[in-house]
Amino acid sequence: MTTANLLGDIPKDMTDESFQTILSRPGIRIERIVSRGHCSPEGFWYDQEGDEWVLLVRGNAALAFEDDPQLVALAPGDHLLIPAHRRHRVAWTSETEETIWLAVHMG
Amino acid sequence: MTTANLLGDIPKDMTDESFQTILSRPGIRIERIVSRGHCSPEGFWYDQEGDEWVLLVRGNAALAFEDDPQLVALAPGDHLLIPAHRRHRVAWTSETEETIWLAVHMG
Repeated sequence: MTTANLLGDIPKDMTDESFQTILSRPGIRIERIVSRGHCSPEGFWYDQEGDEWVLLVRGNAALAFEDDPQLVALAPGDHLLIPAHRRHRVAWTSETEETIWLAVHMG
Repeated sequence: MTTANLLGDIPKDMTDESFQTILSRPGIRIERIVSRGHCSPEGFWYDQEGDEWVLLVRGNAALAFEDDPQLVALAPGDHLLIPAHRRHRVAWTSETEETIWLAVHMG
């Protein structure tokens, strides 16, 4: 039985955010995202076909939702469900350490 | 947008393992498990209808598989896919701290 580690194999070059699919099958995709100071482009909104459950594993970040002026700050262990088509963006991620997200895409 | 925290709300009474469903819908169930020194009863094997992806978030533990004499030790961040009907048990979990698991049950 082989295991992998969600906190390991951080890319040396973090110019771009890192997206890695851990598991993919009909109706579900589990993804690891590593950010370092990245945020979504100004004016860009994710508008997803399916629901997404997201867990912040390490680091710090904040999400913005188009329909809510309040940012949602996330610390390690924080998780939330982002319903399909709820337009959102990454407002900021920590610049001083890697932020590791676990995303479970559904539907 | 409300968030919850996977590391929070640890039951004060940890006589029994804690199982908490975070999200449940057809084909997927996301569950948090908190253990403290718990293990599966001797001779008991989980034999599950669906695949399970499991992430050890905090603590330390080991899984045993019926078809493999080697224990699979898990540290924070370690994850693995346990295929349906692959008989397994929790061999041990840390007695000195809570072990927090995230399980994604599929199918």
